[in-house]
Amino acid sequence: MEFAYSPKVQELQAVAMKFLNEEVIPAEARYQQEKQEIPQWDTPPVIDDLKKLAQERGLWNLFLPAGEQGLTNLEYAPVAEITGRSPWMMPEALNCSAPDTGNMELLHHFATDAVRDRWLPPLLRGEIRSVYGMTEPDVASSDARNISTRIDVDGDEFVINGRKWWSSGAMSPRCKVAIVMGKSNPEGGPHQQQSMVVVPLDTPGITILRSTSVFGYADSGHGGHAEVVYDNVRIPRENLLGELHGGFAMAQARLGPGRIHHAMRLIGMAERAFDLMCERSLSRFPFGKSIAEQGVFQDWIAEARIRIEQVRLLVLKTAWLMDTVGNKGAMTEISAIKVAAPAMATWVIDHAIQAHGGMGVSQDTPLAEMYEQARMLRIADGPDEVHKMSLARRELKRYRLTV
Amino acid sequence: MEFAYSPKVQELQAVAMKFLNEEVIPAEARYQQEKQEIPQWDTPPVIDDLKKLAQERGLWNLFLPAGEQGLTNLEYAPVAEITGRSPWMMPEALNCSAPDTGNMELLHHFATDAVRDRWLPPLLRGEIRSVYGMTEPDVASSDARNISTRIDVDGDEFVINGRKWWSSGAMSPRCKVAIVMGKSNPEGGPHQQQSMVVVPLDTPGITILRSTSVFGYADSGHGGHAEVVYDNVRIPRENLLGELHGGFAMAQARLGPGRIHHAMRLIGMAERAFDLMCERSLSRFPFGKSIAEQGVFQDWIAEARIRIEQVRLLVLKTAWLMDTVGNKGAMTEISAIKVAAPAMATWVIDHAIQAHGGMGVSQDTPLAEMYEQARMLRIADGPDEVHKMSLARRELKRYRLTV
Amino acid sequence: MEFAYSPKVQELQAVAMKFLNEEVIPAEARYQQEKQEIPQWDTPPVIDDLKKLAQERGLWNLFLPAGEQGLTNLEYAPVAEITGRSPWMMPEALNCSAPDTGNMELLHHFATDAVRDRWLPPLLRGEIRSVYGMTEPDVASSDARNISTRIDVDGDEFVINGRKWWSSGAMSPRCKVAIVMGKSNPEGGPHQQQSMVVVPLDTPGITILRSTSVFGYADSGHGGHAEVVYDNVRIPRENLLGELHGGFAMAQARLGPGRIHHAMRLIGMAERAFDLMCERSLSRFPFGKSIAEQGVFQDWIAEARIRIEQVRLLVLKTAWLMDTVGNKGAMTEISAIKVAAPAMATWVIDHAIQAHGGMGVSQDTPLAEMYEQARMLRIADGPDEVHKMSLARRELKRYRLTV
Amino acid sequence: MEFAYSPKVQELQAVAMKFLNEEVIPAEARYQQEKQEIPQWDTPPVIDDLKKLAQERGLWNLFLPAGEQGLTNLEYAPVAEITGRSPWMMPEALNCSAPDTGNMELLHHFATDAVRDRWLPPLLRGEIRSVYGMTEPDVASSDARNISTRIDVDGDEFVINGRKWWSSGAMSPRCKVAIVMGKSNPEGGPHQQQSMVVVPLDTPGITILRSTSVFGYADSGHGGHAEVVYDNVRIPRENLLGELHGGFAMAQARLGPGRIHHAMRLIGMAERAFDLMCERSLSRFPFGKSIAEQGVFQDWIAEARIRIEQVRLLVLKTAWLMDTVGNKGAMTEISAIKVAAPAMATWVIDHAIQAHGGMGVSQDTPLAEMYEQARMLRIADGPDEVHKMSLARRELKRYRLTV
Repeated sequence: MEFAYSPKVQELQAVAMKFLNEEVIPAEARYQQEKQEIPQWDTPPVIDDLKKLAQERGLWNLFLPAGEQGLTNLEYAPVAEITGRSPWMMPEALNCSAPDTGNMELLHHFATDAVRDRWLPPLLRGEIRSVYGMTEPDVASSDARNISTRIDVDGDEFVINGRKWWSSGAMSPRCKVAIVMGKSNPEGGPHQQQSMVVVPLDTPGITILRSTSVFGYADSGHGGHAEVVYDNVRIPRENLLGELHGGFAMAQARLGPGRIHHAMRLIGMAERAFDLMCERSLSRFPFGKSIAEQGVFQDWIAEARIRIEQVRLLVLKTAWLMDTVGNKGAMTEISAIKVAAPAMATWVIDHAIQAHGGMGVSQDTPLAEMYEQARMLRIADGPDEVHKMSLARRELKRYRLTV
Repeated sequence: MEFAYSPKVQELQAVAMKFLNEEVIPAEARYQQEKQEIPQWDTPPVIDDLKKLAQERGLWNLFLPAGEQGLTNLEYAPVAEITGRSPWMMPEALNCSAPDTGNMELLHHFATDAVRDRWLPPLLRGEIRSVYGMTEPDVASSDARNISTRIDVDGDEFVINGRKWWSSGAMSPRCKVAIVMGKSNPEGGPHQQQSMVVVPLDTPGITILRSTSVFGYADSGHGGHAEVVYDNVRIPRENLLGELHGGFAMAQARLGPGRIHHAMRLIGMAERAFDLMCERSLSRFPFGKSIAEQGVFQDWIAEARIRIEQVRLLVLKTAWLMDTVGNKGAMTEISAIKVAAPAMATWVIDHAIQAHGGMGVSQDTPLAEMYEQARMLRIADGPDEVHKMSLARRELKRYRLTV
Repeated sequence: MEFAYSPKVQELQAVAMKFLNEEVIPAEARYQQEKQEIPQWDTPPVIDDLKKLAQERGLWNLFLPAGEQGLTNLEYAPVAEITGRSPWMMPEALNCSAPDTGNMELLHHFATDAVRDRWLPPLLRGEIRSVYGMTEPDVASSDARNISTRIDVDGDEFVINGRKWWSSGAMSPRCKVAIVMGKSNPEGGPHQQQSMVVVPLDTPGITILRSTSVFGYADSGHGGHAEVVYDNVRIPRENLLGELHGGFAMAQARLGPGRIHHAMRLIGMAERAFDLMCERSLSRFPFGKSIAEQGVFQDWIAEARIRIEQVRLLVLKTAWLMDTVGNKGAMTEISAIKVAAPAMATWVIDHAIQAHGGMGVSQDTPLAEMYEQARMLRIADGPDEVHKMSLARRELKRYRLTV
Repeated sequence: MEFAYSPKVQELQAVAMKFLNEEVIPAEARYQQEKQEIPQWDTPPVIDDLKKLAQERGLWNLFLPAGEQGLTNLEYAPVAEITGRSPWMMPEALNCSAPDTGNMELLHHFATDAVRDRWLPPLLRGEIRSVYGMTEPDVASSDARNISTRIDVDGDEFVINGRKWWSSGAMSPRCKVAIVMGKSNPEGGPHQQQSMVVVPLDTPGITILRSTSVFGYADSGHGGHAEVVYDNVRIPRENLLGELHGGFAMAQARLGPGRIHHAMRLIGMAERAFDLMCERSLSRFPFGKSIAEQGVFQDWIAEARIRIEQVRLLVLKTAWLMDTVGNKGAMTEISAIKVAAPAMATWVIDHAIQAHGGMGVSQDTPLAEMYEQARMLRIADGPDEVHKMSLARRELKRYRLTV
C-alpha cells in the first residue's frame, strides 16, 4: 500500500483547491440565484463559465483512467474529494459528474465506432449530458437480475419496453442520450439475461413523465431524477454496447468506479461540513462562551475528524487495490466504502447542521442539501443492507478457506 | 399516574382515526396536486374542505385547555398523536396547528379586551393565521435573553426595530397578525428584559424578506418560514400582551404546551412511518423472500415499536404531570420529551425510508417530508443540547438535595 | 393504564428504601470482605443477618403474587426496582432472588402435594436454595424446543440423562433441589416434547462439574453458574411438575414474571449507577472545574435520565398489562422490556464507569459488577435477537390484521 | 504514505502467525489451568516455555526501535497486531508487553549508566518485570500535572511520599523495579513540576496494599494492578531519569508508543473475536439455519470488517507518521487511534460475545476477558473524553490558521 500523493497529484490538488476557493465557492450564491431565474431544468449559466475556466486550468475530464494518459484511481481520489466540497457545481464544472463519467467509459470501451463517434465527443466536450437507465419502480433493482424492462431483437432493431426511474439528469434539455439496461434473454442464466443499449432521447416512444425529488430537493440544476417510459422504442442493433446479453457484467464493472467516485466526493462534503462546523463554533457565543469551547461540540469535532480520516484511508486503499489488482480484487473494499462513506458523511453533516441551528437546515448553508446527497447514497447503487450482506458472505467464505 | 384513555377520549380517538383514514389520507394526493396549481404560498383548497368536515365532526379547536370545557393534556394527547400521521394536513384541518394554537392561548390569557376581540375570533374560526416572532438570525435564540429586537415605548406607542426569522406561516396571504417578542428593558434583570406585543402584519415598516426552507421543503402550504424586518414599526400600547417586560415568562409558559404538542404529533408521524415500513416489507421480495422475513428488517421493526412505545408513555406521563402539577413541575419531563420524541421519530422514519429504497426519499411517500419535520424539531424551540444541559442541571441539583 | 403508586406501595417503597440505605448499602463492604474469608461458594453471613432484618420489617417474599394476599406486578415493581440498587445482596435478603422465585411459583402451582410440602416451605423460609436446569451447552436453548436432555419414563420413575449449564446457584452448599426441563416425548408436536421434574441435588448420578464465570465474576456469593451432568438420574414419578410433556408451556409461563423482575432490578441498577455518576461528577475537578459542569457529562446525565424514565414507564405498563390481561396479552411488552431494560442499564452503567475512570472498572464501586449483570441479561432468558424477531413477527401480524 | 508490508515484515508476520497458531493458542488452556494451580500472582510456567520458543524463533524484543537495529513503528505494527490475538500470553512471551517495553525505553534513553546496567539487561532477557507508577487514586491523573506524589531532594537522595494505583504488574513476585513519577518542583511551570525516578521495589517504605480488578478479572497472570504506598522511600540521586523536573516531557514521550502498541494489539483482539464470531455463526443452527445465514449476524460481520479495516489503516498511518515526522507530528493521529481502536474493539468483541450466547461471557472463550482489556483502554492512558478534547482543540487551531 503506497498512498503518498505524488508531486504531480499534489500540484493537481493545489490547482483544484485554488479553483474551488477562488471560483467555485464564491459562485455558489450566483448558482442559487440563477436557478430562481431560469426555467426549472436548465443549467445555470454559471456552470458554463466555470467549465471554461476549468478547461483553461487543466481540470477537465480528470476522471479518464490511467491508460488514457489520465489519472489512476489513487491519483484521481484527492481531486475528486475536492470536487465534493461543492458537490452540485464542481463535479460538473470539471466534466466529472455522475452519470456522465460512467456513461462515457461505457461508450469508450463498448460502443461500436459509429455510436461512439456520435456521442462520446460532445460528452467529453461537456456540451451534452447523458442518462443511465437502470433502476425501475416496480422491482428491487438492488439485484440487477430483477430488471424487467424488455429489450427484444426485431430484425435489425431492438425494441424497448419498460419503465425506469431515478434516471438522473434526464429532465435537463441538454440531456440527449440514454444508456438503458434491459432484459434481452429472460431464459438465460442469472447473469446472461440483460443487455445494454444506447438510446437517443429523441427516439419516438420515449416519454419523460416526471421527476422524483430527494428530501424536497428537485436537483433541478442537474436535470432531476426522471421517470421515463419506453413504449416500443426502436433503435438500430449497432446501438448495442458490448455483447448481447452481456449487460450484467458491464453494469457491475461500471459500478466499481462509480462507487469510489461517490465515496471520494462524500469525503469532500464531510470536509466542507467540518469546516463550516469549525467556523460556526468559533463565531457563536450562545451562553457567554464560544460553541467551540463547549465539551459537546468538541466531542463532535473530534469524532468527525476521526471518522473522516478513517474513511479517507479506506478509500485510498480501495483506489490502490483497484489500480493494482483490479475491481474484482477490491470487491470487499468497494462494498466497505459504499457503506462507510455515506454513513460517515451523514453523521458529520448532520452534526454540522445541529451546530448551526435553524440556519443549518435552510438554504443559507450547503449543509442540508449535502445531507440529502449523502443520505441518498445509502440507497443509490444498492442499499447498505445489500452491500453488507455480500461483504459478510465474502468474509465468511474467506474464513472457511483459511481454517 | 393514570394514563388510561377515558371513554370520552376513546370516542374522540375513534372519530379522529376515522377522519384520518377516510378523509385526510385519501386527500393527500389532492393536496400535493393543488400545491402545484396554486400560487406558492396559498393554502390548498382541500384544507378548507377538510376544515368544514372537521367542524361537522366535532374535531375543532381540540387543543383548547380543560378550563374552557376542552380537553386536558392527557386527553388531547392521543388525538394530537393521530393528527401527526398526516402532519401537514390534519393539524391545520382541525385548527390545531402551530403556531396558531400557542398564539391563541396568549391572546386569550394576556391580550387586552380590544385586541383579543379583534384577533381571537377569526383565529378560532380558522379564517386567518398568525405568526410568532421569536427567533432571530443574528443571535443564539435558544437563550431567550439573547433576543435583540427592540420594543421601545414612545408615548402611547411601541416602536419595534429588529429582524426575525423562522416566522413560520408568515408567507401565507392568510397570515394577518404577529406576536413579537423583543427587548423593552435592556438594563433589567435577565428575565425582565423582554416584552411581547401583537402586531398586525399590515402595519407600515414590516417587510417580509424571504422564506427559509427546511432541507429542500419550502413548507409552502403552511406559509413557509419567513424572515421579517421590523423597521420603526409603530403599534398602540394596548397591543402589549400581559405585563411590560414580562415577555420571558409568557414565552416559557407558551413553550410547554407547544413542545408536548410537537411530541404527540411526532409519535403519530412515527406510527405512520411504522405502518409504511410494515406495508413495504410485506409487499417487496427482493431476493426471493419478503423484506419482512429478513432479520435486519425485523430488527428495525422491533426496535421501532420499542422506541415508539417508550416515548408515548413518557409523553403521557408528561401530559399527566402538566395536568396535575402544572408546567413547572413537569419541566424535566418536558425537556425529556423535547429530546426523546424527535430522536425516536427521526430514527423510525429514517429506517422506514431505507426500507423503501429510492421511493423513500421521494415525494411518493410522506416519509422524506416527515423526516424533515422531525429533524427540524431537534432544533426548533431550543436545540437538544440546550434541553439536555438544563435537564442535567436539574438532576444534579435534585441529587444534591437528596444526599 | 393506571400506574400511580398506591399508599400501600408508597409505604412499602419507603420501608424498602430505608432498608437499602441504612442496612444494605452500608453492609456491602462487609459482604465483599466476608467473601474473601469464607469458602468460595458459601453465602456470606451478612446475608443471613439481612434476611432476619428484612423479615422483621415486612420485606419478605414480596414476590408472591396477588392471589396469595401478596402484591400485583404493578405493586411489586417499585420494590423490586429498589432491590436492584444492591443487586447481589438485597434480592436475596428479601428472599426475592432468581431463580428461587420462579421455582417457588412452579412448586406452588404444579407440584404434587408431597413434593410441594417437601421443598416449598424451606424455600419460603429462605433456608435452602434451588436451581433451574434449562440451558444446555450443546444447543441453542433460546429455542426451548432444542433442549436435548432426556427424561424417560421407566416404570414408576423418570430417568434423566443430559448436561445443563448456567444452572445458577448450584455451586452453593445451600442449594438442595433442581427443577429440570428435558425431552420426554421427542416425537410430539413442537410444544409437547418437554417435561419438567423436581430433582433433589443429592440424587445419585448428578455431577456438578464446574462453574462458568461472567466477565471474570464467579458470582460466588450466589452459588455461581454450574455445569451439571445428569447420568441416569432416577426420581419418582410424583416429582413431575404439571402435565407430562407439558414443560414448554410452564417454561413460557415462568419466563414472563422472571423477565419483568429482571427488568425492574435493572432499573434499580441504573438508578444506583446514575447516583454514583452524579456523586462522582460533583466531587472531581480534573481541569479546574467539576465534571458536573462539563458539557459531555451533562449530556450523559440527561441521556441517562431520559432512558431510565422511559424504560421504567414501559415496565410499569407491562406489569399493569400482566395484572389486567395476563402474561399472554403482554407478550409484546414483555419482549420489549426484555430488550430495552438491559440496553438501557448497560448504557447508563457504562457511562457511569467512564465517569469514574479506573475506579469504575475496579471493585471499589459496584459499577463493573452491575455492568456484568446487566450485560448478561442481554443473553439470559433468550438473547435480544430472538426477542426482537418474535416481537417483529407479532407486529407484522397485527399490522396485517388491521389493514 | 507508504504502508506496504516489506518482505522482511511479511516474513516476520508469517513467523509470528505460525507461533501464534501452533504454540500460543494451543497453550491457552494450559495457561488457564496453571493459573488455578500456582500462587495467585505467579507467572504460569507456560509463559516461560513460550519465551524460550520465541527467542529461538527470532521473536524477541521486537518492540526495540529502528535505531537499535530493530523495527520501525510501521514494521512493528503487524507483528504487534498478531500478539493481540492472544493478549495475555503472546506479548509477554515475546517480551513485548506493557509496561515493560515503555520502561525499558526510558531506562535506555534516560537512566544513568549504573542504573541502566543494573536494570535493563534482566528486563531485556525477560527475567524480571517492572512497574510504571503514574496514576494516583486521589487525583484526575488524566492531567499529568495533577500528580501529587512528592519526590523531594534531601542531600544525595530523593525522598518519595505518595500513593499510586493501577501500578500494573507490581503484584508479581518477578516485578523488581518501579519507575515513579512525582512532584519535585511544585512551584514550577505546569510542565516543569514532575520528575521521574527508578525505585527498586525492595526499598524500605514501599507497601503494596492490594490489587484492583478489572470487571472481575484480577489479571493475576500479569501481576495485577497494585495500589502502592510510598512512605519516606529513599533512593540515591543517580536514580533520576533524565533531567530534574523533566518528568512531564518523558511521560508524554513514553505515551506515544504505548498508545500505538495498545491500538495494534486491539486490532489483533478484534480479529480474534471476528474469527470466533465467524466460527460460531457457521457452526450453530438455532432455528433451522446457521447463524451465518441470518441477516442480523451478517450485518455484524460486515460492520466488524469495515470497522477493523478502517482502524488498521489509521494505525498504520499513525505509525508511518511517527516514523517519518516523529511523535509530535503525529499527535492528532495518536489521539485518534487512542479513541478509535478501543471503540472498535469493544464493538466487535461485544457482538462476538452476543453471537456466542452464554458461552461468550464465560471463561470458555477469550472474548469476555478481551472485552475487559479493550474496555479498560478507553480509560487507561487518558480517557476518551480527554483525548477528544485535545484533538478538537488542535483541529480548531489548525482551522483558524488555514482561513
